[in-house]
Amino acid sequence: MTITITAFEASPDRGRGLARDMRVRWALEEVGQPYEVRLVSFAAMKRQAHLALHPFGQIPTYEEGDLAIFESGAIVLHIAQTHPGLLPDDADARARAINWLFAALNTVEPPIVELEQTGFTDGDKPWHAARVPMMQERIRTRLKSLSDRLGDADWLDGAFSAGDLMMVMVLRRLEGDGLVEEFANLVAYVERGKARPAYKRAYADQYAVFAALPKD
Amino acid sequence: MTITITAFEASPDRGRGLARDMRVRWALEEVGQPYEVRLVSFAAMKRQAHLALHPFGQIPTYEEGDLAIFESGAIVLHIAQTHPGLLPDDADARARAINWLFAALNTVEPPIVELEQTGFTDGDKPWHAARVPMMQERIRTRLKSLSDRLGDADWLDGAFSAGDLMMVMVLRRLEGDGLVEEFANLVAYVERGKARPAYKRAYADQYAVFAALPKD
Repeated sequence: MTITITAFEASPDRGRGLARDMRVRWALEEVGQPYEVRLVSFAAMKRQAHLALHPFGQIPTYEEGDLAIFESGAIVLHIAQTHPGLLPDDADARARAINWLFAALNTVEPPIVELEQTGFTDGDKPWHAARVPMMQERIRTRLKSLSDRLGDADWLDGAFSAGDLMMVMVLRRLEGDGLVEEFANLVAYVERGKARPAYKRAYADQYAVFAALPKD
Repeated sequence: MTITITAFEASPDRGRGLARDMRVRWALEEVGQPYEVRLVSFAAMKRQAHLALHPFGQIPTYEEGDLAIFESGAIVLHIAQTHPGLLPDDADARARAINWLFAALNTVEPPIVELEQTGFTDGDKPWHAARVPMMQERIRTRLKSLSDRLGDADWLDGAFSAGDLMMVMVLRRLEGDGLVEEFANLVAYVERGKARPAYKRAYADQYAVFAALPKD
């Protein structure tokens, strides 16, 4: 069955691969599953045809036969549960890997998104400079806990899993903020993720969409 | 195998059932699985014994034989995947229910947590009054999308699922804010969740912990 995902027609991060389609592309590359991409404009994301697939009007979406889902976490988990390569076979180890997938999305990512978003919404407000260190401190607390747990291991729990894939992508959102850099083992962890051949293929494919945009 | 979860020794919400152990208690009640509760103090949550179970020093945790996990989303999913009652049998419907579980945690909850947390961290700051409407508007956008998708259905996708359980719990975090009340179908949706016998048993059990606290 053909798999079709959606991605931004015009990459808002200029091809840096921080949009959520990158998580899905990487997962599909890890399990060796081909897929098609339908590009959507910002206007099209808010139209009824796209809202039928994604009620919150965002990307990515994932279609496979009669199935349509839209949360990057659910899509990565679906891919991991229906193909070998992203979850261990042992039931307990599998539950722990899925636990890290949720930890990336519900414990580590939210304060990072808050820092990012307030840059857009509050960046020109007089209070923003005072709030940034408070938000950074909340992120730092999470990173410290994560760094302590990771220690000198390569991955969060045994072999590379869907949980590591998501955690690496969430940590990448901090690129340029200097926060991950306070934890040498997290820097090395992200680099290990980015060195994977599947990551590189996914990155190149999403970059190609940006590179093909008409230059203005 | 005995299931043991952790919960706050001293309920910070005075027994209103908004802490994340309530999600796990409700799921266990839905599938009819008995469990034990170990209460932890705020000090104990930051000690090594608890950090070994929950690297971010929070509650709940979930222990069952050799398995230990800590994200409420992962715990609810684990319960749903290992017992009948919280996920449909059909594979596509199952993936969609799990999609709603992630939507509750990664799309709907983060702006709600941000509003809650800035009440604590920024409540006494001069900018807070100006920021509250901005944060409320972001939440309202999410609720509007959710309300549009729910329409006049009882649950988000067919029968009640782990996705509805989590979405109801996330919406409950807005109690007293007047935002859910702008969407009559979401109010009715939350009430349907709270009317379930399993919800009521879970609520009563967590309330009993608060009621047993020494009065000061």
